[in-house]
Amino acid sequence: MTTHDLYLDDMTVGQRFESRGYTFTESDIIDFALRFDPQPFHIDVEAAKATQYGGLIASGFHTLAIAFRVLYQTGFLIGGNLGAPGIDELRWVRPVRPGDTLRTVAEVKEIIPSTSKPDRGILKLGVQAVNQRSEAAMTATFVIMVKRRRG
Amino acid sequence: MTTHDLYLDDMTVGQRFESRGYTFTESDIIDFALRFDPQPFHIDVEAAKATQYGGLIASGFHTLAIAFRVLYQTGFLIGGNLGAPGIDELRWVRPVRPGDTLRTVAEVKEIIPSTSKPDRGILKLGVQAVNQRSEAAMTATFVIMVKRRRG
Repeated sequence: MTTHDLYLDDMTVGQRFESRGYTFTESDIIDFALRFDPQPFHIDVEAAKATQYGGLIASGFHTLAIAFRVLYQTGFLIGGNLGAPGIDELRWVRPVRPGDTLRTVAEVKEIIPSTSKPDRGILKLGVQAVNQRSEAAMTATFVIMVKRRRG
Repeated sequence: MTTHDLYLDDMTVGQRFESRGYTFTESDIIDFALRFDPQPFHIDVEAAKATQYGGLIASGFHTLAIAFRVLYQTGFLIGGNLGAPGIDELRWVRPVRPGDTLRTVAEVKEIIPSTSKPDRGILKLGVQAVNQRSEAAMTATFVIMVKRRRG
């Protein structure tokens, strides 16, 4: 389901959003990790073979950034998003390998209108980055500040 | 303090690690955000002026990735790091603007040896990305799997 410019008043608990996919290439995994997370299992194919992962895997920060990017691309928060206070319980539960295609599945968990600022509120979104076998690679709760239609 | 190749057995609660700094430029903020978080307040200087931020700010995912990068660069986990299960209570508490220089300050909060795998354990690290005025821009708890010296 792709919707556009939702505000806090349009959200209901249990509502789901699903993004399109993104394929992680070896080149992209190494390029991201060289800048931000240059651990051997993210940038060195040979060294990665000898680790517990048995081969190159994407940086968790890369997985997180892509998971947000494809979710944002659904358009559901383009108008109403006031910025994100943070993320709770981020877990990288399964390696992301070259050739894996991830999409993001998000579900509204909580809607908390602000008591002090009537033009906004907090949205808690359960987020999963799932691969082409529908296995979760990453789970998290995104805490997002969203505009209300009525003040 | 910069140390090298620490293992779980070398860590003590309260131990601190501090990275060197990194200066966020306008170009770098826009470049990262265009790929991963293309919201107007991250990529459009003019549109950003009209938002509650009053100007361009870095994507929180960018701040997070850089905070890890400079912390990793201290070398304290190069040998012992087995990968990160996740992050708890990540909060972006203050905007990061072009010209801001951030460093990462980390403190060991908890050390939990694995009961099932005697060669490893969990390290909980309180992490702050602080700017040139020593104000926290981001806070989080990193949950990291670390090797033990003795099995």
